[in-house]
Amino acid sequence: MKKVLVLGAGQLARMMELAGTPLNLDVKAFDVRSLKVVQPISPEHEYGNLAQGIANADVITAEFEHVAHDTLSECEASSKLYPSSNAIKIGGDRRLEKSLLESCQAANAKHYFVNNKADFDQAISALSLPIIFKSALEGYDGKGQWRLKTPEDAEAVWLDMAKFLADAKDTQSIVAEQMVPFDREVSLVGVRRKNGDIAVYPLTENHHTQGILSVSVAAPVNETLQKQAGEVFKALTEELNYVGVLAIEFFQVGETLLVNEIAPRVHNSGHWTQQGADTCQFENHLRAICDLPLGSTSLVRPTAMINIIGEDEVSNDVLAIPSVTIHWYNKGKRAGRKMGHINVSGESELILAQRLVQLATLLPASAFPDLAEFAQSYLANK
Amino acid sequence: MKKVLVLGAGQLARMMELAGTPLNLDVKAFDVRSLKVVQPISPEHEYGNLAQGIANADVITAEFEHVAHDTLSECEASSKLYPSSNAIKIGGDRRLEKSLLESCQAANAKHYFVNNKADFDQAISALSLPIIFKSALEGYDGKGQWRLKTPEDAEAVWLDMAKFLADAKDTQSIVAEQMVPFDREVSLVGVRRKNGDIAVYPLTENHHTQGILSVSVAAPVNETLQKQAGEVFKALTEELNYVGVLAIEFFQVGETLLVNEIAPRVHNSGHWTQQGADTCQFENHLRAICDLPLGSTSLVRPTAMINIIGEDEVSNDVLAIPSVTIHWYNKGKRAGRKMGHINVSGESELILAQRLVQLATLLPASAFPDLAEFAQSYLANK
Repeated sequence: MKKVLVLGAGQLARMMELAGTPLNLDVKAFDVRSLKVVQPISPEHEYGNLAQGIANADVITAEFEHVAHDTLSECEASSKLYPSSNAIKIGGDRRLEKSLLESCQAANAKHYFVNNKADFDQAISALSLPIIFKSALEGYDGKGQWRLKTPEDAEAVWLDMAKFLADAKDTQSIVAEQMVPFDREVSLVGVRRKNGDIAVYPLTENHHTQGILSVSVAAPVNETLQKQAGEVFKALTEELNYVGVLAIEFFQVGETLLVNEIAPRVHNSGHWTQQGADTCQFENHLRAICDLPLGSTSLVRPTAMINIIGEDEVSNDVLAIPSVTIHWYNKGKRAGRKMGHINVSGESELILAQRLVQLATLLPASAFPDLAEFAQSYLANK
Repeated sequence: MKKVLVLGAGQLARMMELAGTPLNLDVKAFDVRSLKVVQPISPEHEYGNLAQGIANADVITAEFEHVAHDTLSECEASSKLYPSSNAIKIGGDRRLEKSLLESCQAANAKHYFVNNKADFDQAISALSLPIIFKSALEGYDGKGQWRLKTPEDAEAVWLDMAKFLADAKDTQSIVAEQMVPFDREVSLVGVRRKNGDIAVYPLTENHHTQGILSVSVAAPVNETLQKQAGEVFKALTEELNYVGVLAIEFFQVGETLLVNEIAPRVHNSGHWTQQGADTCQFENHLRAICDLPLGSTSLVRPTAMINIIGEDEVSNDVLAIPSVTIHWYNKGKRAGRKMGHINVSGESELILAQRLVQLATLLPASAFPDLAEFAQSYLANK
């Protein structure tokens, strides 16, 4: 039995344990808050500290990119870490991320690094409004971001950002980015094995509510876009000599994809693969880092994923809809927290759309504010 | 979080934990050897004795039918046991099983109960050869069975059976059954909720090797047979006021199904549902006993299950075949022991058949003796 240690003991480690157990993989997780190694699905079971976890593991991986750098170094020193600390850091630092995109010639929004007022002024003159400013080291799910729409707001935005930079405990920086008038947001989840084998899932269409992913839909895709995304995936992962699952978020502008963000890990927009793909992203990540053959990433049937945010229960009637599966993360209830997700599939996109409409009637609009509208517009297009 | 206690801590409890965890069900198991409550996927974690397990549980169920009767009584006294002890006992006693089949008028092979030499002689004259004798209380996977093909062997068979009856610690009995010249063996796995809702999976075709299930295939079915099987399922489960998954093994003779055996639990011939059905049998069993809406039992795509018997590893190349999933049970290697299973699916039966042929080339004939022949004949029929 191969032993896997995951840095981070959240829902992604939990779903890795669920996917890895049938493969006879022993998945443990390093909880970065308690500094203990735990069993992801039963975190009350502890297995010592990081050093012991590293010693016991055959392979180490991460479920998030904001792992402390000394932790990454300690893991990398064991030669068991996949992907590399370098790749993980890129996901946690927009400066490194942008440099990677440039070196791979991966299309992305025009941008500028901001460290002081002079940079800020230069960014405004080099880019046209609106501009989005994102902190380089922190910030996901909409945190640590500023939007500048009119020149009049520049001073207020700068003051707030300057305070943020001054308060930052790490060497922070801000990336100013031309806001792209995109048609939609899509993401590509793919996987690369040590020997260079690559497999990518179909592009997923993503919808955000207040900066947090709310719905992802995987359905048969536009071949041109899929090819474009696959080429970016190949270029980036080969450049990094990447091993494991990596997700790329894109803005789609017409028939062109611009990279928005890279996540060097299994990704929320890939949770649909648990019911909709031949092999789920969690199993494929484990296969890749354990040097097993990659599983097929084919779409089995159109599938949507709906995040459950800030709620710890939903009506049981949801389970009465065919092809609905609920995945709870066993986390304490907190506003804005990802508590679980619902996967729903259909034999066709029309059936999937009808089920989404039905789901929207059973889930409270207070917790799923955009679902009904999304489901109706998705149905209208089928 | 609802707490479920499973009587028996083998692979079926393990797969219930894997299926139940996403639903926020806390699945523990009572190990009937150590008499401890454990976590099925990490049995080193203990949670006290049976009484504590019963007190902590919201719902109790069983993964096998040979549970000690005093254990069943103790569980039933808590009013948490589903299915009932009565239903579980029927699966462990062929006399009760045959009586149930008679009372439900479910077609089954002509049979006779044998407790002594006079019964034995009478069975031989009442039934025609060949006859199969099966011990009432024990015996599955081909154990505790005798076949009588010619009158000359009668004396030897009786002597062996008489010794078995004399040595039995419980009040044993033997059921003599007319051997049926069947065309094939099929099984129906279905589920019934407390409110009477029923859902059944498509009939599965089963192949045995030396009395142990080796391959099950689920594919689009003959409607007449499916209807027949569904009616038997309904009659039996309503008679028992059954709650949970129940499997019925049938002999198919032309267009008629004769009940061979009933298993009041999730069943090996239903393991294909993990990849091939909308909701797997483990989740549906948990949904039923926790009084949640049943999940759809539709076939998503043709799927076969291959048991891994007596081997604790297979070539990693198996994982390179698309739509192949391996499920290991983390059990110590022992000849004849079910160690895991492989599920393989195909977009069509032809593709499934081709993959089975490919699998057979990668799995050693010593451990999978009939697979190559089965795969070839399955392919020839597609």
